[in-house]
Amino acid sequence: MHGLKEQENNTSDSTVNPLSRIRIVLSRTSHPGNIGGAARALKTMGMADLRLVSPKRFPDPQARAMASNALDVLESARVCNSLDEALQGCGLTVAVTARTREWHHPVYTPRGIAPCILEATAAAPVALVFGNESFGLSNEETQRCRWLCNIPANPEYSSLNLAAAVQVICYELRTALQDTPLQLEEAHDPARHEDIERFHAELGKTLERIGFLNPKVPKRVLQRLRRLFARTSLEREEVQILLGILKHVNKKVDQNSGE
Amino acid sequence: MHGLKEQENNTSDSTVNPLSRIRIVLSRTSHPGNIGGAARALKTMGMADLRLVSPKRFPDPQARAMASNALDVLESARVCNSLDEALQGCGLTVAVTARTREWHHPVYTPRGIAPCILEATAAAPVALVFGNESFGLSNEETQRCRWLCNIPANPEYSSLNLAAAVQVICYELRTALQDTPLQLEEAHDPARHEDIERFHAELGKTLERIGFLNPKVPKRVLQRLRRLFARTSLEREEVQILLGILKHVNKKVDQNSGE
Repeated sequence: MHGLKEQENNTSDSTVNPLSRIRIVLSRTSHPGNIGGAARALKTMGMADLRLVSPKRFPDPQARAMASNALDVLESARVCNSLDEALQGCGLTVAVTARTREWHHPVYTPRGIAPCILEATAAAPVALVFGNESFGLSNEETQRCRWLCNIPANPEYSSLNLAAAVQVICYELRTALQDTPLQLEEAHDPARHEDIERFHAELGKTLERIGFLNPKVPKRVLQRLRRLFARTSLEREEVQILLGILKHVNKKVDQNSGE
Repeated sequence: MHGLKEQENNTSDSTVNPLSRIRIVLSRTSHPGNIGGAARALKTMGMADLRLVSPKRFPDPQARAMASNALDVLESARVCNSLDEALQGCGLTVAVTARTREWHHPVYTPRGIAPCILEATAAAPVALVFGNESFGLSNEETQRCRWLCNIPANPEYSSLNLAAAVQVICYELRTALQDTPLQLEEAHDPARHEDIERFHAELGKTLERIGFLNPKVPKRVLQRLRRLFARTSLEREEVQILLGILKHVNKKVDQNSGE
């Protein structure tokens, strides 16, 4: 209702609609009908940015049939080879999952998270990631996202159809835009997905070099560290600092092995 | 939150769940897949009462396929010959429609109407009526309902898929019933102040040793790092991990200078 208006007052670029900075990512979708259904869900809620990570069948006539009058969204959907590629350039990344996980990323409801997502779009695009129809998101995919979002459902049967889940999420985002006045955070420059992944890759290599990782369960401590950094909203400059530290550690180790 | 409680106070049968007294009515549905999708939408939100007014094709394999694990809801769906038959026994009746009408029924949003619906179930079952995929509800059908409900959507393309619209409505009803946030994180063991200070002290010493700190403004980067870790709620075990990493870095440096 008044959401858009206030948004206009608070940002330098008065034409940016937060919904245009939200990306829906479907990973390894099996049924093309669901891709079409998702495109329709986006468009009915005024969204348009759809990315498909390794879809099983796409393009496909079933996708077109289910998209109905959202063919424009479907046809502009970008196919990516990896989740990292689909998340490139994003600040906040959210895995939408029915399962709760062992590690404790913050878990939010769609209603609880929607205003945060709208707010986060001021700094960088935000991605919401949906997994495969049968097996959902892999642990690895989930770990690449900062937050988890769980659609409240019947505990005895909590598995929403993929396109229906996309509809619920997009509906919550649109409703939040209309309902809540946006109070934008002070502008900061959030680290992008690829910056954070680079940091984690460097961290892993460095910890291996200094002999910190337990060779029997090398990934365990890295998962803990991912969880730790997922809770904080790393800024770009902070990632540079962290990478700088790792570089210095490696230099020291090089000096050592060089002698 | 209080939905169930109030229900208990208002009815003789204290075990009645309001969601079990809400009926979803699909009128003259064309595509059997949508009937299956609607059954699934109901079940995922803990609902079960589905009525079909003159469906074009039912039963149908496509309906079964789209129902997934909600076959029980699908199979118990009652087929009716008229809307009046489907609404029999109901108190409040609500037409869900994308169109606004000339006559002035009250028009509600799903979020606005959900608590009223839950409350109304105390007196009698409530029905929500969805029209045909292409032409929606007829004027005559709409007039048979007391209230109108309109899912907020993109004015340029407001036509949700039928099953997706059912999902949104059922989701709002369930959410209104359980308006409690998800239990966020299991109780964790937060790092104590002194743990965190020890970590920052060790971090400072180590960064100095590896030559990372700018001697001119040594404190600046440390302040940035403090800010970073202040945003996350470090756990005790995580501080142990971080201290372990620093210890290994120092060991490497020792080896170096010892040679």
